[in-house]
Amino acid sequence: MPRFIKKSSKKAGLPPGTLVHVGERKQDVTRISVMDYEGDRLDEHCPMDVETVFPLRDEPATSWINIDGVHDIGVIEKLGQHFLIHPLILEDIVNTAQRPKLEEFDDYLYLVLKMLTWDDVAGRVRAEQVSLVLGHHFLISFQEAEGDVFEPVRKRIRAGRGRIRGSGSDYLAYALIDSIVDHYFIVLEHLGEKIESLEAQLYEDGGDDPLNAIYRLKQEMIYLRKQIGPLRETLNLLHKTENPLVQEKNRVFYADVYDHLVQGIEVIESLRDVLSGLQDLYISLTGQRMNEVMKVLTIIATIFIPITFVAGIYGMNFEVMPELKWRGGYLMVWAIFGVIAAAMLVYFKRRKWL
Amino acid sequence: MPRFIKKSSKKAGLPPGTLVHVGERKQDVTRISVMDYEGDRLDEHCPMDVETVFPLRDEPATSWINIDGVHDIGVIEKLGQHFLIHPLILEDIVNTAQRPKLEEFDDYLYLVLKMLTWDDVAGRVRAEQVSLVLGHHFLISFQEAEGDVFEPVRKRIRAGRGRIRGSGSDYLAYALIDSIVDHYFIVLEHLGEKIESLEAQLYEDGGDDPLNAIYRLKQEMIYLRKQIGPLRETLNLLHKTENPLVQEKNRVFYADVYDHLVQGIEVIESLRDVLSGLQDLYISLTGQRMNEVMKVLTIIATIFIPITFVAGIYGMNFEVMPELKWRGGYLMVWAIFGVIAAAMLVYFKRRKWL
Amino acid sequence: MPRFIKKSSKKAGLPPGTLVHVGERKQDVTRISVMDYEGDRLDEHCPMDVETVFPLRDEPATSWINIDGVHDIGVIEKLGQHFLIHPLILEDIVNTAQRPKLEEFDDYLYLVLKMLTWDDVAGRVRAEQVSLVLGHHFLISFQEAEGDVFEPVRKRIRAGRGRIRGSGSDYLAYALIDSIVDHYFIVLEHLGEKIESLEAQLYEDGGDDPLNAIYRLKQEMIYLRKQIGPLRETLNLLHKTENPLVQEKNRVFYADVYDHLVQGIEVIESLRDVLSGLQDLYISLTGQRMNEVMKVLTIIATIFIPITFVAGIYGMNFEVMPELKWRGGYLMVWAIFGVIAAAMLVYFKRRKWL
Amino acid sequence: MPRFIKKSSKKAGLPPGTLVHVGERKQDVTRISVMDYEGDRLDEHCPMDVETVFPLRDEPATSWINIDGVHDIGVIEKLGQHFLIHPLILEDIVNTAQRPKLEEFDDYLYLVLKMLTWDDVAGRVRAEQVSLVLGHHFLISFQEAEGDVFEPVRKRIRAGRGRIRGSGSDYLAYALIDSIVDHYFIVLEHLGEKIESLEAQLYEDGGDDPLNAIYRLKQEMIYLRKQIGPLRETLNLLHKTENPLVQEKNRVFYADVYDHLVQGIEVIESLRDVLSGLQDLYISLTGQRMNEVMKVLTIIATIFIPITFVAGIYGMNFEVMPELKWRGGYLMVWAIFGVIAAAMLVYFKRRKWL
Amino acid sequence: MPRFIKKSSKKAGLPPGTLVHVGERKQDVTRISVMDYEGDRLDEHCPMDVETVFPLRDEPATSWINIDGVHDIGVIEKLGQHFLIHPLILEDIVNTAQRPKLEEFDDYLYLVLKMLTWDDVAGRVRAEQVSLVLGHHFLISFQEAEGDVFEPVRKRIRAGRGRIRGSGSDYLAYALIDSIVDHYFIVLEHLGEKIESLEAQLYEDGGDDPLNAIYRLKQEMIYLRKQIGPLRETLNLLHKTENPLVQEKNRVFYADVYDHLVQGIEVIESLRDVLSGLQDLYISLTGQRMNEVMKVLTIIATIFIPITFVAGIYGMNFEVMPELKWRGGYLMVWAIFGVIAAAMLVYFKRRKWL
Repeated sequence: MPRFIKKSSKKAGLPPGTLVHVGERKQDVTRISVMDYEGDRLDEHCPMDVETVFPLRDEPATSWINIDGVHDIGVIEKLGQHFLIHPLILEDIVNTAQRPKLEEFDDYLYLVLKMLTWDDVAGRVRAEQVSLVLGHHFLISFQEAEGDVFEPVRKRIRAGRGRIRGSGSDYLAYALIDSIVDHYFIVLEHLGEKIESLEAQLYEDGGDDPLNAIYRLKQEMIYLRKQIGPLRETLNLLHKTENPLVQEKNRVFYADVYDHLVQGIEVIESLRDVLSGLQDLYISLTGQRMNEVMKVLTIIATIFIPITFVAGIYGMNFEVMPELKWRGGYLMVWAIFGVIAAAMLVYFKRRKWL
Repeated sequence: MPRFIKKSSKKAGLPPGTLVHVGERKQDVTRISVMDYEGDRLDEHCPMDVETVFPLRDEPATSWINIDGVHDIGVIEKLGQHFLIHPLILEDIVNTAQRPKLEEFDDYLYLVLKMLTWDDVAGRVRAEQVSLVLGHHFLISFQEAEGDVFEPVRKRIRAGRGRIRGSGSDYLAYALIDSIVDHYFIVLEHLGEKIESLEAQLYEDGGDDPLNAIYRLKQEMIYLRKQIGPLRETLNLLHKTENPLVQEKNRVFYADVYDHLVQGIEVIESLRDVLSGLQDLYISLTGQRMNEVMKVLTIIATIFIPITFVAGIYGMNFEVMPELKWRGGYLMVWAIFGVIAAAMLVYFKRRKWL
Repeated sequence: MPRFIKKSSKKAGLPPGTLVHVGERKQDVTRISVMDYEGDRLDEHCPMDVETVFPLRDEPATSWINIDGVHDIGVIEKLGQHFLIHPLILEDIVNTAQRPKLEEFDDYLYLVLKMLTWDDVAGRVRAEQVSLVLGHHFLISFQEAEGDVFEPVRKRIRAGRGRIRGSGSDYLAYALIDSIVDHYFIVLEHLGEKIESLEAQLYEDGGDDPLNAIYRLKQEMIYLRKQIGPLRETLNLLHKTENPLVQEKNRVFYADVYDHLVQGIEVIESLRDVLSGLQDLYISLTGQRMNEVMKVLTIIATIFIPITFVAGIYGMNFEVMPELKWRGGYLMVWAIFGVIAAAMLVYFKRRKWL
Repeated sequence: MPRFIKKSSKKAGLPPGTLVHVGERKQDVTRISVMDYEGDRLDEHCPMDVETVFPLRDEPATSWINIDGVHDIGVIEKLGQHFLIHPLILEDIVNTAQRPKLEEFDDYLYLVLKMLTWDDVAGRVRAEQVSLVLGHHFLISFQEAEGDVFEPVRKRIRAGRGRIRGSGSDYLAYALIDSIVDHYFIVLEHLGEKIESLEAQLYEDGGDDPLNAIYRLKQEMIYLRKQIGPLRETLNLLHKTENPLVQEKNRVFYADVYDHLVQGIEVIESLRDVLSGLQDLYISLTGQRMNEVMKVLTIIATIFIPITFVAGIYGMNFEVMPELKWRGGYLMVWAIFGVIAAAMLVYFKRRKWL
Repeated sequence: MPRFIKKSSKKAGLPPGTLVHVGERKQDVTRISVMDYEGDRLDEHCPMDVETVFPLRDEPATSWINIDGVHDIGVIEKLGQHFLIHPLILEDIVNTAQRPKLEEFDDYLYLVLKMLTWDDVAGRVRAEQVSLVLGHHFLISFQEAEGDVFEPVRKRIRAGRGRIRGSGSDYLAYALIDSIVDHYFIVLEHLGEKIESLEAQLYEDGGDDPLNAIYRLKQEMIYLRKQIGPLRETLNLLHKTENPLVQEKNRVFYADVYDHLVQGIEVIESLRDVLSGLQDLYISLTGQRMNEVMKVLTIIATIFIPITFVAGIYGMNFEVMPELKWRGGYLMVWAIFGVIAAAMLVYFKRRKWL
């Protein structure tokens, strides 16, 4: 459940703009990394002090400042003051229980979204909040923990491949968003494989608890939709914005990543439907198996109960029981057994139970 | 059910604008408390007479007049006459069965919303109607009972922390709404924890009645959605209103609280989905357990019924029963028992019942 | 079912504007009652002839003409001709299978809505169609049967209480609509109480047939939604209309009754959800009880079936059965009984069936 | 299933505008009937040749040309060429798998809709496609088979009753649409009666297969919604069109038939809900009955299984069984029987199974 | 599951515009076929080199260039460069996991849609991505594998039938889209037949696994809706576009194919509803059959268990058992048997179990 509602109770009642970190503290040290590039030049380093990055604000080259560890209120506050970020936005950056959204200001855009990764050990999706502050020549990204899905973007910047070196900070923002959305599909593939193996397993009956597996997967789906769903509206706003921070020539890329996202959301919906079908199938299968169990019991019981009764009769100790003295009595009883059993079998055949 | 429909039958047929208190009478004495502040000055007191607060209307300092106990028609009526509040609005204030809404007038805004708290004893959500009348320099809040979620706001006013002392009555209104919405998350956390413990309990079978617990939680969800849902539209109207009563600079705060609310409503939807999943899981588990019960019964019965029949045969008292005289007869019967039981077990193994 | 589709087959194929009464004929005699008032003057009478009311059309005082019994085509037709009502509207008035709607003409507004009352004997909702024709100085209301929810309005007119005497025919129309909508809540309270007692009853198992009760309540809900639902759009149109027949100053009252209606519809939705939850609960309870029944059967059967078999063995009449001659044979058998029973009980304990 | 998808595979790949009859061929001979009227004059005849009707195009009197049998490609093609109907429209006329729609051209309107009738023998709804081509002074209607719901309209034309003789071809079109929509209610009444009798039957258990009946009725509902649903949008377009082919004065009639249709669609929705409720009721009833069956079995079995075991004990043939020699042994056994049975009965009473 | 999410993980992190083939590689060799026509002239050939088709770009005759095999990045890239297609579009062409969409550029339109065929061996729907690039005098179509639904269009071009030879590249594009949409109905017919035979089979109980069949069909429906659904919006955009690439006179054909598509989507919805009804029916049938099994078991068991007990009593070996010595004892026991059995039968008759 903590996945659905982060403990925000400690925030209740505080004045707005108070920076309180909400969420899991995933690492101890805040790590700042900078990539500053312009044409052929690339300057990459990890400053220890946040003040080191301040000059990048006014420098014409494109700078990507990445902050790992948003729990360090001090660093965030200093950055915010220098880069003139609204206190409410700083509050949102450190509160990792945000829903995806876009906020436009005169000098920068603020975008929150969720980076999803597949945790193979726990067999579930992990979400991490990524905040992007896009200015004219800089992009600041905030994450909770080290380790992200941006490595390919870094490689492209280092290699100078593609248009990334010459397309400004808005293209860089697009590249990061695109990496995140591409990763959604990797997560969806993992879930799809889980569903597929579940489907195969359902017909074998042995194996783990399929009910629980279906329930867990449904939870993941609800979680995914909650994390990804609102991003649709956000990206739609972004690729239609007339804010000069997003260059006309880069708008087609934003449209492209929006398209991918819509496709991802449709896959989620399809998988949810498949999962519901799977659950219906499982419930029906359970009913069907119970039916079979019952039939076996009923067939055995209804054949043997009457003939056991007949045997019981001739086990009675009455002094006067003429049949007991008949020569063929014993044979006759066997005949009765046979007739009863045969009649029952015919009856079951007719009802198509056999 | 009285939670869903308050007894408004006593109101039916009365002319509009007639003040009739609808709802539970939660306390006997009406309590008025006033906080009047401007820059460094703070004047806080609890007048016994409603007339005492009348001069605050025209005074330039920001005044917060809080009324606990809306059943006192006389006080409400006097306030209404002096502060020029429309009779239909007064009627809405005393009728605690309102849905959240915003009404705009030339001189004031009227906002109704529900303050939710978690009642740990009853294990359910408690709602109390809060009415806010926002004028140029004053804010009047109406509640049913003493005790509210506004204590942190009062502390901020007393401490003079943050911007609250200098931001006018519309910021104060925002602070109260924000407190209420923040509290929704605390209520949601409680519900989330209940769902989580229910989930854990479901696999143990022992424990309380999970069906009833699921049903109760679903009721709470329906109740929550009914109380909170319409507020979305209301806050949306409020943060987009062009009414001069809401200052341009404070609009961003209204947008922020609207965002929180939307997030809260999404959490409700997610929890509802989780709860539905839980119920499906429970029903399936019940089916699965019944299936297991049936299998045990069927295995035991179908093994023993036939061999009991065999034993019954040789308990018959026919004079002519050659087997009874055979030396190995008794051993043979044991062999028959063994063969039947083994055949059954093999059959069950093949059907994967064992 | 006749509640959902009134026999309109007798109408099929007739030219439009043909007056045919559709619905139940609830009384024999058509009754006309008139309240004509202006300031302090009130003239109330029940004319025998419809022609008596004709002069009221052009008289400046506000006149309320109420017709009980819409099956009397002749009266309706005469009224229609004199008051210049469109033939299609007259057709709608006598056809009591209308859905709530508003039609605007130059000289009058036509509004159909449903008056609901709770029939305690049948335990169901009764609907009656009310048509209102609102002109500049008159309001004509059409009902099927005598007896309505307008008594409080009549009392207010007689007493001259509130603003009703001086606010024109549109305020009168509002007062009637408000009476009808207020009555919806009384009906909802009755339904709410039924649901509540059903809930209590569900856990006792004894009592009447809860399935049928749930089904009946669901039917009432479908019926209510069908009767009330379209009124939402109708009242929304009405309070936003710019038709001069609705005075600017009275518009706020129409907004108020619209608000009440929306609230009522939300209550219906909540009750429907509660009812669905109740049905799920009932189905789950049935499953759970069956499970318990099965467990009892299984425990008893699986303990006794094996030991009865053991008893059966030693009831066999083989000549050579060494155990029968053992001294401790009988004790040994009791020991076997005990061991089997104990083993079974341990097994059930482990499976948490006990 | 052919009701949901007509075999249109033979059309796939043909160039657009190719006339291919899709649907059931319901009669052999194409029948043309003409009603040509103007004020007092009415000229009604059934020409053998389609060329006979050509002059009606340019004649000022209102002409209604009705074609029974759309499979006759030749006739349709000739008509189309003379009346200047677009080839795609001709294609739609002969393809009876159209969904209701309106297409506007400069000289004519094209409207497709479904005429529904209740087939009492098959107990299901029959649909027939009706195409209307509305020109300035003519209306051409196309049907598949002879026999329709237009007889009352023909009678009104013949009798000269109402306004039909003097209101032009658009009023005639309205009259036909109105007849069709009125007939929807007759179909709905039949379905309503079926549902009602099903409901009564459900509590008797005997009778036909209620499951199948519910399933069939649901199919009819899906079919009805598919046939009628899209007409809503179509009629909405039609009564709001500014096309001069629909006279201003006749627009109110189109609004009226639109209203009727909306009402009909709401009835369908209500009946669908009622049907779902009925199905839930049936499933619950089945569960409840199974529960009762199980209880009877369990009570009988759990009383007799233990006492049969006791009887089995004393049927054993051990040499040393002291109880067998007791004087009161037999009475003691009966006492044991009684105690066991009584204990069981008390247990069942406590669990409320009796 | 690979049907719902194609392995796009290999694409994650690459710069946009990188051509990576996503999807199944269906054939080895890329095949180019050209149809170049203008009035009476038709030039049809299959060039080995992609460069051969370059001159067609600027030639005034209509050219249809069809590419089978989109995995050949080289060919796509060369074409793209010459025909000035945007790199993101080229990326979409080779990534066969696109959802249907339309993108408009100054010189060409790009349309992706899914060609569906029914695979009778696998009993499922097969989808293949078709990309269309529509320029002023050319149309380039991209497919994954040889073999398509365009044969009738080719025949029409060869035969010069209809308007295809003289209506430009936009009409050609329409003809291809129309072929694809017509084929959707063939696929739907196959699914409809499967559903119909399933329905018939459901009442026979024997036969294959209907549960699995329902589940499979539901999957197909989810798949279909995912493939076809977004095309609705796409075609709607296309037939309303004001792009000069689509000629005014051909717009009516685009409207026509849009209509067909909407009809197809409605059929999918109806079939989904039918399928859900079928599943409900199946679950209810299972419940009903279990009920019958239980009744048979209960009737047999409850008749024989008591009388077997009676027989057991008189099989006891007490020395003092007076009944055993009675003359009529044996007859009396038979009478008891009869009375018990008759009483049970009467009880079952009353409960309507027999």
